[in-house]
Amino acid sequence: MRCIKCRKPANVEVRRHRSAFCAGCYPGWFRDQVERVVTHDRMFKRDQKVLVAVSGGKDSLALWHALLRLGYQADGMYIRLGIADYSRRSQAKSEAFAAEHGLTLHQVDLEGDEGFKVPDLAEQRSGKPCASCGTVKRYHFNKLAADLGYPVVATGHNLDDEAATLFGNVVHWQTDYLGRQGPVLESTHPKLVRKVKPLYRLAERDTAAYAVIERIDYILEECPMAKGAKSLEYKDLLNRLEETQPGAKHRFLVGFLKDGRKAVQGGEPVVLRECANCGQPTTAETCAYCRMVARGRRKAAELAEKYART
Amino acid sequence: MRCIKCRKPANVEVRRHRSAFCAGCYPGWFRDQVERVVTHDRMFKRDQKVLVAVSGGKDSLALWHALLRLGYQADGMYIRLGIADYSRRSQAKSEAFAAEHGLTLHQVDLEGDEGFKVPDLAEQRSGKPCASCGTVKRYHFNKLAADLGYPVVATGHNLDDEAATLFGNVVHWQTDYLGRQGPVLESTHPKLVRKVKPLYRLAERDTAAYAVIERIDYILEECPMAKGAKSLEYKDLLNRLEETQPGAKHRFLVGFLKDGRKAVQGGEPVVLRECANCGQPTTAETCAYCRMVARGRRKAAELAEKYART
Repeated sequence: MRCIKCRKPANVEVRRHRSAFCAGCYPGWFRDQVERVVTHDRMFKRDQKVLVAVSGGKDSLALWHALLRLGYQADGMYIRLGIADYSRRSQAKSEAFAAEHGLTLHQVDLEGDEGFKVPDLAEQRSGKPCASCGTVKRYHFNKLAADLGYPVVATGHNLDDEAATLFGNVVHWQTDYLGRQGPVLESTHPKLVRKVKPLYRLAERDTAAYAVIERIDYILEECPMAKGAKSLEYKDLLNRLEETQPGAKHRFLVGFLKDGRKAVQGGEPVVLRECANCGQPTTAETCAYCRMVARGRRKAAELAEKYART
Repeated sequence: MRCIKCRKPANVEVRRHRSAFCAGCYPGWFRDQVERVVTHDRMFKRDQKVLVAVSGGKDSLALWHALLRLGYQADGMYIRLGIADYSRRSQAKSEAFAAEHGLTLHQVDLEGDEGFKVPDLAEQRSGKPCASCGTVKRYHFNKLAADLGYPVVATGHNLDDEAATLFGNVVHWQTDYLGRQGPVLESTHPKLVRKVKPLYRLAERDTAAYAVIERIDYILEECPMAKGAKSLEYKDLLNRLEETQPGAKHRFLVGFLKDGRKAVQGGEPVVLRECANCGQPTTAETCAYCRMVARGRRKAAELAEKYART
C-alpha cells in the first residue's frame, strides 16, 4: 500500500476512507480533518479562546496538539480525579505536554477543593463510578470555562466514543439522551458553555496514529475503574461490525446525526434554571452534581457513625 | 435448577424471565405467552380464521401448533421458493405436519405459477436473493390471504428476528422502516391483509425448545442462500450483548415499541393504491414485486440474447 499523497510506502491505513498515508503526510491529513469539522460544524473561530478538556490520554492531547498546529488559541484544563496511580500518571503526562509547548493548563483538585475522589463515588449496584465521574467532569469543565470566560469547551471524544454512546442510548431507547447527542451542544443558559467535539469523525486508531507519529507522550493505559464498563462492550461490538462492514460505525453515527436525531427530537425543549445549591445551570431544583455530592456525604456520615458504634 | 411450576428438575431455562421449567410444564408456559400476546396486542379472536405463513422451520411450525392447541382456527400456507434441496425438504416437513394434524396447507409454486425461482433473484452486488425473497413472501402471503378472505396472516418472527431487523434498521437509520416496524401491521387498504407476529416476545431458543418437547419435526438447517447475511451477523452481535446483559434483546425491542417507535414516527402517513400491473396494494405506480419480476425477466432476456449471439 502506498501513501495517496506522495506514493511512498504507507504507514497508516484509513479503511473507511479507502486511504493510506506515510508517516510524513498523515499528520497533515489528520489536521485537515479536524479543521474541516471545526469549520463545517461552526465550532469556533481562530479569534476565540478554546478550553480543551485534557485527560492525559491520546485523544485529548492529540486534539490540543492539532488545534495549536492549526493556529487556534487553546488552553487546557485537567481535573485531578483521585484515581490513585492512574491519576498521578495522567496528571504528569498532561503537565509535561503543557510545559513542553509552553501552554496554560488549568487544574481542579477534586479531593483538595471538594473533599472527595472519584473512587468514593462507586455505585453500589455496578461497583463503578463511571456515570458519576461523567457528572464530575461535565460539571467542572463547564464551571471553570464559564468562570474564566471561555466561550467554548472542546473535548477529545472520537468516532468510537460517540458511536458507543449512541449504541448504548439506542439499545436502551433513551430517547431524551438521543435527542441531545451531537458534536455541538449549544449554550442555552448564560452559565452553560458551548461544548464541541472536533474529533467526532476520527476513529480511535486515527488519533492513536497521530499521537504516535507526532511523538505525543500520552498515558497508554485505560482508566482502571472502567474495566468491564458497558461503553467498552459497545465499542467491542461495533468493532466486530466494522470488521465485516467497513465504515459501519461512521454511517451509524453520521446517519443518526443526519436522519435519526431529527426523527427522535420533537419533545419539549429543555428549560434550564440555576441550581438552588451551587447556582450552576440545571433542569432540576438541585443539579445532578450537588445531588451526587450530597448522596456521597450522607453515605460517608452513615459509615462513620456505624464504625463509631462498633 | 428446578421448574418454577412443579419443582421437578428443570429442562429449559428462560434467563430473561428468571424462570426455568421441566419438559412437562414448559409447553403450557410457552402457549400462555402466545395467548397473552395475541390477546394483549389484539391480534385476532377465536372466531377468526388465521392464515399461518409456514416455512417448515421451528418458528412457523411451533406457532401453528401452539395456535391450534390454544383453540384458534389456523390454516397454513407454504410457498415453494425453488431453493433446490432445501426447499424440497422444507416442503416435505410442512406437508407432513399438516397431514399429521389433518390441517389445510395452501401452496404457491413460484416456478410453476410465476416462472422463476428465488435463486434467480440473487443480486449482483451481494450475490444474495434475501431481500427479493422477502418481497416474494410478503406479496404471495398477502395476495393468497386476501383472495381466500382470511382477515389476518400470522408469521413466526421471534424476538431474535425482530431485534435483528430493528438493529439493522437502526445501524443504517432507516427511519421510514423504523416507523413501520411492529408486531401488528394494520390493514390500510382493502387488499392489504393485517399481519401479526405472535412470537415476537419469545426467543429463538424458546421456540426451538417448544418444537423439540412437542416433537414437532421441523427442518433444522438454515436457508443455504442466507449464509453470511447481515441479519445473521446482527443476531450474533445481539447474542453477545445478551450474554453479558441478559434481557438486552427484549429491552431493545420492547423499548423501541414503547418509546423509540413513537419518537421516530410522525412522517407523512403512507397512501396505498393499486399496482398498475397486478392490482395489489402499493405505494408506487407499479408494486415492488412486479418491478422485481420485470427486472428478472429483462436480465434473463439479455442473457438469452447474449448467448444466441455467441
